[in-house]
This record gives sequence, structure tokens and C-alpha cells, in this order.
Amino acid sequence: MESFKVNILGCGSATPSMRHNPSCQVINFRESLMMIDCGEGAQLQLRRNSLKFSRLTHIFISHTHGDHCLGLPGLLSTLSLHGREGCIKVYMLKEGIRMLKPVIEYMCPHCSFDVEFVEINPKGGLLLETNALTVEAFPLYHRVPCVGFIFREKKKPRHINGEMVKFYDVPVRLIQDLKDGADLVLPDGRVVPNSVLTSDPNPATSYAYCSDTMFDPRVAEAVRGVDTIYHEATYTSDLEDKAFERGHSTAAQAATIAKMAGAKRLIIGHYSKRYEEPAELLPEALAIFPNTIAADEGMSIDLLAD
Amino acid sequence: MESFKVNILGCGSATPSMRHNPSCQVINFRESLMMIDCGEGAQLQLRRNSLKFSRLTHIFISHTHGDHCLGLPGLLSTLSLHGREGCIKVYMLKEGIRMLKPVIEYMCPHCSFDVEFVEINPKGGLLLETNALTVEAFPLYHRVPCVGFIFREKKKPRHINGEMVKFYDVPVRLIQDLKDGADLVLPDGRVVPNSVLTSDPNPATSYAYCSDTMFDPRVAEAVRGVDTIYHEATYTSDLEDKAFERGHSTAAQAATIAKMAGAKRLIIGHYSKRYEEPAELLPEALAIFPNTIAADEGMSIDLLAD
Repeated sequence: MESFKVNILGCGSATPSMRHNPSCQVINFRESLMMIDCGEGAQLQLRRNSLKFSRLTHIFISHTHGDHCLGLPGLLSTLSLHGREGCIKVYMLKEGIRMLKPVIEYMCPHCSFDVEFVEINPKGGLLLETNALTVEAFPLYHRVPCVGFIFREKKKPRHINGEMVKFYDVPVRLIQDLKDGADLVLPDGRVVPNSVLTSDPNPATSYAYCSDTMFDPRVAEAVRGVDTIYHEATYTSDLEDKAFERGHSTAAQAATIAKMAGAKRLIIGHYSKRYEEPAELLPEALAIFPNTIAADEGMSIDLLAD
Repeated sequence: MESFKVNILGCGSATPSMRHNPSCQVINFRESLMMIDCGEGAQLQLRRNSLKFSRLTHIFISHTHGDHCLGLPGLLSTLSLHGREGCIKVYMLKEGIRMLKPVIEYMCPHCSFDVEFVEINPKGGLLLETNALTVEAFPLYHRVPCVGFIFREKKKPRHINGEMVKFYDVPVRLIQDLKDGADLVLPDGRVVPNSVLTSDPNPATSYAYCSDTMFDPRVAEAVRGVDTIYHEATYTSDLEDKAFERGHSTAAQAATIAKMAGAKRLIIGHYSKRYEEPAELLPEALAIFPNTIAADEGMSIDLLAD
């Protein structure tokens, strides 16, 4: 039930290729699906990865370059043809809404569900808060306005110790209070400390998406303390000048950000098409930040596992 | 040199699936490439079929449903990233231009080539005329304004009989006249009939694209005498009512149009995703029009061969 995974649907850059799809990820949080970026072909990648269309509730678009958003009209149009109901919230910068909203409305004239466009402030801020999760945006440093996203589980309830609860004959109505950390007051007035009745909850986990961006220490500041960071690594270090010029990062720079931010794990992606295999970029990241994974299409990474 | 082929890049309908891409074809006419419809994923299909981006000069969009045009912004954006030069002409109905031109201009702010949008009159008419080819539009009958396209080779020059030309010592400056059918006047005033010096040219070949459309005898009228007809066959005959209701055709109706039009060959496509294989739709077309091919992605059909 406590699932929190990221599925990599596309980790190429700029143009789709035979090897990689453009940017797209899906966060699977307790069976609800949230998409991050939606490059061309995203709808097919959803299907290929057996992710259910009906569970997709939110779409977050980092910026308005084609490889991050051009799959959106087709995806929403297909969802409508499938008769999906309810509402999908699409979070975009204002230029993205201006550009794509008319296309989406034209392509889905009798849309079976509501599409709610939510404008992202390029300076960042809280986008979504549920009982169990928050999603916030923060600025990235690219050629055009661009934001990253942090998905944070909220603090989780304490684990109930079933045997002790039976021993003290705790009524059901008090269980939630115990989970929230309250002590138990017995009918005779004695107080049983919460720590006797519960144990520590699983730690709340967090995930940050940083693409597209040049190397900038402000990114490390923004994602400080996040457990797993996805950071773009378009180039290897020999092309650091080109990375800077294009508003992108090298794999070594991605690893440096993860190290500066105190992350537990780094995922690199958004590879230039000049690299045949993600393995070409991995070694220079590993040298700086050992717990690095090179993203690849079809990968599902359990964010709760270390 | 006289190549005239159609490459099937997508022959599915409505939504891309694991089996079929949305509508897209490429006419390879003497090494110049012209695209018909541009569903999502068209750029990847171009690459998969080893069709050179640099040779693509014209794009014809039949109508403004997503599965026929949503690949366009990504394709043009990729062409620009590849530094393609010159001009690409994009022919669309006015609603398509209104919808997609702003997206294309936004996605390719420093486009390396000119994109010229040409508005198609939904009533049809001549769109393009070169030395060797014409392309014309004609109305189809779908849920929204929609046109088909006819590609016609112009009448070809007569074949020169090399031996006879040497025998009569014909100067080079007269060769073109002979190819055009002129008789030869010798220095002494005698006339050598053209038929002695040349033989009949290869017949001019034609190809019509009819998708999307319901069954309508006016389509047969419009494509009368065309050699090869591509006609949509979204459904099998058991779903004829659904075809009518959705503005589509059955495979039997596609074959009936080909027969009424006196075509030499029929290609069916635009299959509903309910069919696993094109072979499911083929038998009912074959029963009415024997020379039918069921389109499939990756197919290249030589329009000059019978």
C-alpha cells in the first residue's frame, strides 16, 4: 500500500530516437499515477509499461520545450477516446498553457473528463497537497523558464503494536490518536506512554526531478535533504562548455549536485543522442556520487527502498 | 530515376497502439519525399524507415484530428535541430493552421528553414505542380472537414531510339522535341515521323489517398481512373453502422470504391485498434476487389509496378 515508485518512460533529450524517448516519468504513489513531463510518444510508453490510463490524475510539465510537452495533446485526446472520467490536473508554466490549451481543447471537443490547467509560478511553490503527499516546484536554470518538482511523502503514522494494544484493551476510537503519537490514559488515570504502544513509522521519502538545467548550486540548495534526485546529464564532461552554452549539465555536474544536496541516491537521464548507451555517462557520475543509477526506458525504481 | 513509391509509416486509427502508428505515409517521388498526414510518432517512423529528413519537402494534412496531425510540431522541431535548410511547405485546412502554426512557431523559434503554410480549400483543387507531378485535393466525407489527395505523374517524354537517332544523325538540340513527339525534318526536307525515332513512354501513374471518410460514391468519382487508391478501412462489415456513425468505412466499402473508380490496385488501412492484424480486414475487401493490399507499417509499395 505504501508504494512510491518512479517509472522512466523517456530519458532521451531533444528528439526521440530509436534508442530513447523524450522526457517522461510516472510517479506511482499508492496506485495513483502522476506524470512528470510528457514528450511525444508518452501515451504509447504508458501503455508499453502497463500503467493504467485511468489512474493518471496529475501531469506536471517542467518547461515548454517540445521534448517535454508535445505528447500532451495526443495523450489527453486518447484518454478521452477511452472514456476516462473525472478530472486531470495539468500543471504548466503560463507559456505552455497559452500554447497547448487551445490545441487540447480543439482535439478533445467532447472530452469525457475535465482538464484543469494550473499555472506554475516559475519562482516555484507548493503545487499539490494531499493527505499523504506534497508536490512543490522550484526554479531550474535553462535557456527558457523551467522548474523542477519535489514529491514528498508526509510524515507517516506510527506503527501500532498489536499485542500491547490488546493488553491494554485500547478502544478502536483511540487508535488514530496513538498513530499520531498520543499517550494512552487508562480508565484509572494511569498514563501509558505512546512509545509502549507504537513503534517509529517508516521514514517519509522524497524525490526531486531536475530537468532541464545547467549546473547551478541553487539547485542543490532547493533539493537539500531529498532522498532520491533525478538530475539531467545531457553530456559527458568533455562537453562541459557545450552543456553550459545549451543550458544543460554533464553527468559529473549532476553527481556534484547530488553530493552537495546530501542525497541518498541519484538517477541521471536526458542523454544527448550522441551517446549510444547510458553506460557511457555513468562512470563519471559514479566517481563523484557512488549511488547513481543511469535511467533507461522501462525502468521502475522503488523510491522507498534504499 | 523514375521512382514513385508510397511508404506506410502509420496505418492505425484514433490512437497509437503497440501494433500500429497513427496515420502517416511518405511518397517517394524521384528521391523527393512528400508526407501525407503526420500522426504522433511520425518523426520516429521516418527514421525507422531510413527516409532522409533532408529530402522531405512537402507535408499534406488531410484533416485536423489528432491522429493525422499531432506529429507535426515535433517533426518540424526535430528537422530544425538537425539544421535542415531551405523550405518545407505544409498544406492544411484553415483550422489546422490556426491550431498548429502558433505551436510550431513557438517550438522552433530559430527554425533553420522556412515553413510555409498553405491553406487547403475543403472543396479541393490543385495544390502543387512541378515539371513531373501534380498534387490535388478533393473532398472526403468525415465528421469534420477532410480532404483526400491525388498524386499524378505528368505525361512522360517518349523514349528515344538511340540507333535511329544515330542513323539520321540527329543534332542534340532536337532531342527534346523528339521526346515531346515532334517529327524530324531532314536537311533535304524529308520528314521522318516521330514514331520511327521514338517509342511510347512509360504510362503516367497516379495515387490517391482517401482517409478519413465514410463510404460515398462521390469519392469514387473524384478518384476515377487513378491507378492505386489508398482507402481507409477502419472496420469490418459487421460494424457498418458504427462506421457510418463515426464517419468511417468498412473494408468492403473501401473495395467497392476502388471497383467503382476503376482502380488497378487498392491499399486499405486506418484500422481500428480492435483488429489485431490487418489480415482480419483483408478477406472482405478481396472478395470485392481482388488486387487489394492490407497496409502495414514499414511497407514500401512501388506505384510504378502493376
